[in-house]
Amino acid sequence: MVTGKKKTEMREDFSGKVSDETLRKLVGYNMKRAFNEVQADLVQVLQQFDLRMMTYSALILIVDNPGLRQSHLAEALAVERPNLVIIIDELERRGLIARERLISDRRAYALVATLPGRQLYENALRAVKAHETKIFGDLDDPETLKLIETLRQVERRARAR
Amino acid sequence: MVTGKKKTEMREDFSGKVSDETLRKLVGYNMKRAFNEVQADLVQVLQQFDLRMMTYSALILIVDNPGLRQSHLAEALAVERPNLVIIIDELERRGLIARERLISDRRAYALVATLPGRQLYENALRAVKAHETKIFGDLDDPETLKLIETLRQVERRARAR
Repeated sequence: MVTGKKKTEMREDFSGKVSDETLRKLVGYNMKRAFNEVQADLVQVLQQFDLRMMTYSALILIVDNPGLRQSHLAEALAVERPNLVIIIDELERRGLIARERLISDRRAYALVATLPGRQLYENALRAVKAHETKIFGDLDDPETLKLIETLRQVERRARAR
Repeated sequence: MVTGKKKTEMREDFSGKVSDETLRKLVGYNMKRAFNEVQADLVQVLQQFDLRMMTYSALILIVDNPGLRQSHLAEALAVERPNLVIIIDELERRGLIARERLISDRRAYALVATLPGRQLYENALRAVKAHETKIFGDLDDPETLKLIETLRQVERRARAR
C-alpha cells in the first residue's frame, strides 16, 4: 500500500502531458477523434451556406427523393419527429423546399425541393466535396473508395451485434 | 415548370425507399454512420460495468496518468469543467478514484485510481477489446493497424484546416 506522503509526491511530479496510449490502440477512439475533426471542418464549410449538418443532409435527401414523406425523412436521418419539424420549417421558411398535403392521406406531407433549393444543394455539395478532397484525397482514388468500403463494412458488422 | 397536378402525382408515387446515394459517396457521412453503430454497441458493452463512454474514458486516463489534474483531464477529454465534475464525482462516489488537494496548489485536485478502479479498468478494457475484435477483426492485424493509421492521418489533416 502506498502511503499518503508518497502518493502526494507522485502527484506533484505529474508532468502535465496526458498519455492516451491505451485509448489510441482502440479503433473506436481514433474513429471518434477523426470524426470530431472532420465534423468541425464541415460545420465551417456549411456555415458559408447558412446550413447546419442536419439541414444540409435533409436538403440532399429531399432533392434526391422528390415527394418523400416527413416520416421517411425522419427515419433516414434518424431524428425524432419534433426535431425534424424544426429542420423542415427552416428549409421551408428559406424557400428551399415546399411541403404539400397528400391527396391520399391529408395528414401526411410530401416534400419537394424548389429551384433555389436545388441550386443551394449543388453549390453546397461542391464545397463539401472540396472539403473532403482536402482531408481524404481525391474522392475517386482507390484508397478513398477503399476507406468508404471499410467504413460501410464496419457499420454493417457493428449493426449486426 | 411542373404543374401542381403533375407534382402531386409524382409525390403520390413516391416508393418509400429513401435513396442516400449522394451522401454515401461522401466519406464523412459513412464515417458518421459507422461511428454511430460502433458507439451503440460500445454503450451496451460498458453498461455491463455501469460505465458510460465519458466515465470509461476518464477512468482509463486516470489509471494511465496517476496524479493528473482535473484541468488536464478536461482538456484531454475535450469536456467543459462542469461536465467533468459530474464524471469525477461519479467515479469518486463509486470508490474507483480518489481526488486530493495538491500541496503546491490548494485549489487544484490530483486524481488517482483506487485498486477497485484499476480492476474495473482491466475488466472493462478486456470487454471493449472483444467488442472491437468482433467489429474490426484482430486488433493486431495489419488491416486494423492500417485503419487506425488512416484515421489518425484523417484527424491530423482535418485539424490542419
